[in-house]
Amino acid sequence: MEIKIMKNILDRNQHRAEEVRKMLLSKKLLMVNIISSPGAGKTTLLERTCEVLGPKFRIGVIEGDITTDRDAQRLKKYNIPIVVINTEGGCHLDSHSIFKVLDSFDLDNLDVLFVENVGNLICPSQFDLGENFKIAVVSTTEGDDKPEKYPMLFREARAVILNKIDLIPYTNFNLTDFKSDLKMINARVSLFEVSCTRGDGLEMWFDWIGEKIKSIIFPMEGSQAKNL
Amino acid sequence: MEIKIMKNILDRNQHRAEEVRKMLLSKKLLMVNIISSPGAGKTTLLERTCEVLGPKFRIGVIEGDITTDRDAQRLKKYNIPIVVINTEGGCHLDSHSIFKVLDSFDLDNLDVLFVENVGNLICPSQFDLGENFKIAVVSTTEGDDKPEKYPMLFREARAVILNKIDLIPYTNFNLTDFKSDLKMINARVSLFEVSCTRGDGLEMWFDWIGEKIKSIIFPMEGSQAKNL
Repeated sequence: MEIKIMKNILDRNQHRAEEVRKMLLSKKLLMVNIISSPGAGKTTLLERTCEVLGPKFRIGVIEGDITTDRDAQRLKKYNIPIVVINTEGGCHLDSHSIFKVLDSFDLDNLDVLFVENVGNLICPSQFDLGENFKIAVVSTTEGDDKPEKYPMLFREARAVILNKIDLIPYTNFNLTDFKSDLKMINARVSLFEVSCTRGDGLEMWFDWIGEKIKSIIFPMEGSQAKNL
Repeated sequence: MEIKIMKNILDRNQHRAEEVRKMLLSKKLLMVNIISSPGAGKTTLLERTCEVLGPKFRIGVIEGDITTDRDAQRLKKYNIPIVVINTEGGCHLDSHSIFKVLDSFDLDNLDVLFVENVGNLICPSQFDLGENFKIAVVSTTEGDDKPEKYPMLFREARAVILNKIDLIPYTNFNLTDFKSDLKMINARVSLFEVSCTRGDGLEMWFDWIGEKIKSIIFPMEGSQAKNL
């Protein structure tokens, strides 16, 4: 019985996600669904990204949180449109809540909409929000076994941000094992090894996501368009 | 509609949890439900606990994992009974799965059963497994804002293990903020500040959980019995 209910919920979510996707396409707007465990560094990644890409692109953010607007408060200083969705105990965002808040943005004046999902490595990966792609953020302090233990997200993600590489010397994180496990699960995924607090390795992420945004704004130019 | 379904699921879970609780009581067996984000240190806490308390008490472990038996493999060296529950995508354990695996243990020859839940700070806190109490494990590298952002677990937990205190100097974790937020949410919770890899601060945890086990085995002795 529960399997049938879950299927209905996912079917309805998928239907609404397709509507979101159509709307975003008509507005030439990239939507990126950022997923991680609590505290892996999603908000810090967004802070760095707004700092560097804010002057180049028109960024909007949807902040998914169980309660509080603490993450949104951290992004206020970039003077970008931000909408908070409090799930009130819910463990993930869904396409219905995204669809509802799209009205709050001036979509004609945005190039990219980052969605910071609820901090959870499991449930968010099962719900299509209508995004162009998902990004997984995982930190070295969580251990190198995460791709094998939580494969759903790593299978779905277009890119993986491995954060807190500056803390590797103080942990037993094995980068070789992490990479080989990740490759087994998703051979084509892009991997960025970064420290969001120190800034290490972020240039390649800025270039990569910048290209993705451009390929939506100017879909006929550049080879990246084919990969989206 | 989804709220009604969730209520049904929770009601049935609660009913079965009470059966588990009755069985544990009849066997004078403590069950502890350990919950955290992925990689916060649940398995390392269990390793240290088996090392020190293994010679004093008869320990059993239920390992909840989405897939793989990696955590169970890490505990094999302690020569204790371990049963793995793979949820195959499910984001938490429930009382039905616990009830089913209790048969696999020789309950008459156990003093404590540790349940390592699926790595998730949200969903597991909503499901009573029939345990005596829940323990929250949270690591400093996740940030000091976790109690406020994920209050359900911290409200439910009898004790909080703050792990990876050896990494505080390399992060922006504010211990004072963490403690005051936690106290607002759960004034009576026991807090242990530890490093499970280095062993710092674990003695108080061993004493505390040892007392809890004893108060189940010898329920008439000691004042701890009243607190369980």
